[in-house]
Amino acid sequence: MTDSLQCKVMSAEEAATLIQNGELIGVSGFTLAGYPKEVPKALAERGKALREAGVDFKVSLFSGASTGDECDGNLARAGILDWRMPYQSNPSLRKAINDGSVRYLDAHLGCMGPMVRSGALPHPTLAIIEAVAVTPDGRVYLSSSGGNSATYLALADKIILEINSLYGDAFLGFHDTFVPALAPFAKPIPILSAGDRVGEEFVRVDPSKIIAIVHTDRADSVNSFSEPDPTSKIIAGQILEFLHHERKKGRLPEGLPYQSGVGNVANAVLCAMANDPLQGCISLYTEVIQEAVFTLLEAEKLKGASGTALTFSTAAQKLFKTNVNSWKKRFVLRQQEVSNSPEVIRRLGIISMNTALECDIYGNVNSSHVSGMSIMNGIGGSADFARNCALGFFMTPSTAKNGAISAIVPLVSHVDHTDHDTMIFVTEQGLADLRGLDPITRAHAIIDHCAHPHYRHLLNESLNFSLRFSKGKHLPLSLEQVFDMHLRFMKTGNMAEDNFETFI
Amino acid sequence: MTDSLQCKVMSAEEAATLIQNGELIGVSGFTLAGYPKEVPKALAERGKALREAGVDFKVSLFSGASTGDECDGNLARAGILDWRMPYQSNPSLRKAINDGSVRYLDAHLGCMGPMVRSGALPHPTLAIIEAVAVTPDGRVYLSSSGGNSATYLALADKIILEINSLYGDAFLGFHDTFVPALAPFAKPIPILSAGDRVGEEFVRVDPSKIIAIVHTDRADSVNSFSEPDPTSKIIAGQILEFLHHERKKGRLPEGLPYQSGVGNVANAVLCAMANDPLQGCISLYTEVIQEAVFTLLEAEKLKGASGTALTFSTAAQKLFKTNVNSWKKRFVLRQQEVSNSPEVIRRLGIISMNTALECDIYGNVNSSHVSGMSIMNGIGGSADFARNCALGFFMTPSTAKNGAISAIVPLVSHVDHTDHDTMIFVTEQGLADLRGLDPITRAHAIIDHCAHPHYRHLLNESLNFSLRFSKGKHLPLSLEQVFDMHLRFMKTGNMAEDNFETFI
Repeated sequence: MTDSLQCKVMSAEEAATLIQNGELIGVSGFTLAGYPKEVPKALAERGKALREAGVDFKVSLFSGASTGDECDGNLARAGILDWRMPYQSNPSLRKAINDGSVRYLDAHLGCMGPMVRSGALPHPTLAIIEAVAVTPDGRVYLSSSGGNSATYLALADKIILEINSLYGDAFLGFHDTFVPALAPFAKPIPILSAGDRVGEEFVRVDPSKIIAIVHTDRADSVNSFSEPDPTSKIIAGQILEFLHHERKKGRLPEGLPYQSGVGNVANAVLCAMANDPLQGCISLYTEVIQEAVFTLLEAEKLKGASGTALTFSTAAQKLFKTNVNSWKKRFVLRQQEVSNSPEVIRRLGIISMNTALECDIYGNVNSSHVSGMSIMNGIGGSADFARNCALGFFMTPSTAKNGAISAIVPLVSHVDHTDHDTMIFVTEQGLADLRGLDPITRAHAIIDHCAHPHYRHLLNESLNFSLRFSKGKHLPLSLEQVFDMHLRFMKTGNMAEDNFETFI
Repeated sequence: MTDSLQCKVMSAEEAATLIQNGELIGVSGFTLAGYPKEVPKALAERGKALREAGVDFKVSLFSGASTGDECDGNLARAGILDWRMPYQSNPSLRKAINDGSVRYLDAHLGCMGPMVRSGALPHPTLAIIEAVAVTPDGRVYLSSSGGNSATYLALADKIILEINSLYGDAFLGFHDTFVPALAPFAKPIPILSAGDRVGEEFVRVDPSKIIAIVHTDRADSVNSFSEPDPTSKIIAGQILEFLHHERKKGRLPEGLPYQSGVGNVANAVLCAMANDPLQGCISLYTEVIQEAVFTLLEAEKLKGASGTALTFSTAAQKLFKTNVNSWKKRFVLRQQEVSNSPEVIRRLGIISMNTALECDIYGNVNSSHVSGMSIMNGIGGSADFARNCALGFFMTPSTAKNGAISAIVPLVSHVDHTDHDTMIFVTEQGLADLRGLDPITRAHAIIDHCAHPHYRHLLNESLNFSLRFSKGKHLPLSLEQVFDMHLRFMKTGNMAEDNFETFI
């Protein structure tokens, strides 16, 4: 670092004083990877103190996706967040959104960058980005996520960098920063296979925009990886069996890359692949690279992994650092509009696996809103993949809350994915291949194969009521009773009828 | 035509005898353009006679999109249709779907071709395709639509061609047949501007698969173009005003191509552009080229038009034939997976305008199902464009059936487009720009700007009820009362309360 940058080094508290009321801040970070940790914490403290002193102080936050508690949690608890996009998963922030104190807008993660650049969304005034290094001529080497960092760095007038020394040189050479031009200047994104590198290893910024550099060695605070539970293992087994079946039928070519959503079920599928003797070496073209890749690496089944975030627990981060030089060439981290690009997902023929919150008997999926009202996290990148993949799975255990909630319902209380965009539903009960099925056939397939047996009679009762009510119409639906299971849950805490005991 | 093809020439009735019970037929045709007319009619008569004689006879039908009454109407009335995909607009067929006698599956029009080729949907056993010419070595020159004809011709074992002499040489040189390879062999679709030609002017087939050639001179039966009504003109005016506003704000570059849905409102917008002195020359990269292009051509405002169908009334067909040589170079007809390609739509930065059946206060759109049950036509290509465009409008008059139906509702009874995929709502009442708005702000914007004043109090009442019920949750929604307006309509024929007179 030269003098010109050296003189920008300061404490997080000093950096926080450079942030004004009303700023729109674009931060790095995607699924708890590579988010700024020090300045948001100091900003929360400063903002809280100002507000307690009666001074107006609020900021808005654009990110890649979810950030850690140091960022989203602190800002939410300080009460200084006004507007937040496009994704979060923090309990304090979720609470603030669901008590109406933070305005939140859930958006496709692959669309956020272009919408900000085009002006459809406002430009951030300030970028706070975690990096592992910066050069005097303004090359910023990002840390464990790509996110929308290149866009925020390009558009913001002011930049605060958090240089994280924890990673050492581990992330140098990891990133492939390519930001597609907008129409009318857009060209094809030149990615033809999952591992293709088409950009630079760093983000170029105007060094004069850097107003502060803060040093840290704080790790991403990612929860430890839990071993797949029995339900997840059954779901994973069914997906693998189906993939073999499709290959045998000639409907699935070898070598298509996988996208795997976040969470235990998704991890279980990758682990099952590592252990399946019929499964060859795979590529991932995904959003979040979770630590199940280690299992694949150990089994010598990982050809390569492309994503926008490396979401590893502290233990996995250590393992990764130890082996980074031998593994590095198999990983590439992209900006999220490229990891989630509809163009590339369609071209590569991705096999997509995402988790559903609830699925209805017509094929619609709710990924985000409990009882249609309370946001959990958001749609994330699930629709970028589900809408454009070659083969798509939505996975969920058939029940939640010890059986009080059926994940299969007559009509989802919130639609994130319409029946046009869903192909295969999988629960631990079974798998329903919905491709080519009309609504009534689809309803029977989902009830018979995916619903928990305890809920099948209620779902059939609802379907039969709708069939009578709608007198053969294309989509049998009785608006009057279609949410009865949801309403019963809200009243009694159980979707099943009163005389049903919680059965698990 | 050489002897080898000449000997395949026969009457439609003879050709129909070559069709077996249980066939899956892939037909040409998109939005009443370029569909087979003679053989389906003869097939319907044959099938009906067989069924009346107690012989099982049913066929399934894949198309581009909607076909004319000669095809969809006759087959539906004969009662010989089993399964139908991916779109229709015929009254007899609609009735058959909504009385449960035809299994119908509504799908994204841009996805149908690849799904059939990949085997996600079955391959047609027979293709019946309208063409203007065929050569001995199997070059088939399509007529007024591209649709999925190249896919069906490639996959079906048997081909029946209807050679339509009405068009003369008019359509030679019109088509650009490019069928993208599937993964893992897919490459970027090399279209960089709306008029780019990247394929061949014909479809190559194996001539030995041609089992019949039927001659016809029957025209596409497209309704006459109606002059824009006052409501459509107001909607069009608002869209133009908004486009100017966005350009002035620097959020909309010059020269982005337009997609315009089917129908009077869409036609009105193009006519308004022709008459707007502030509007320069435009390109269309659309699905259906409707006759509003003539108004643009006359005003010297059409740079070029790319689509998959030329849907012209008989009068417009004549006008077109007369001027075809001077206009030809400005038109290109593609296969529908290219006209509707997410990759190309995103790259070109399309401005998309589609009609909604109903919109809800959260930003979801229903394009297809009345009261959530009865299919009208289908989603068509609206989601191919809405999901991938640079700027997207959903347009609808604020009321239907003389005011008995509000097009703005508390929750749509069927979701075709989720709030993540909608940007601007426009009715004759006004325009709501939903980009970046959280659910509650969005609800107020839609009620205040788009709803008819007679329905605003009901919508606000519903929103307020939901706000109280959901106690500040991210998305205020009361599942118990959210369909009250729909239910009242089903009971009383009016969405408004009993003491409301039909007000228009």
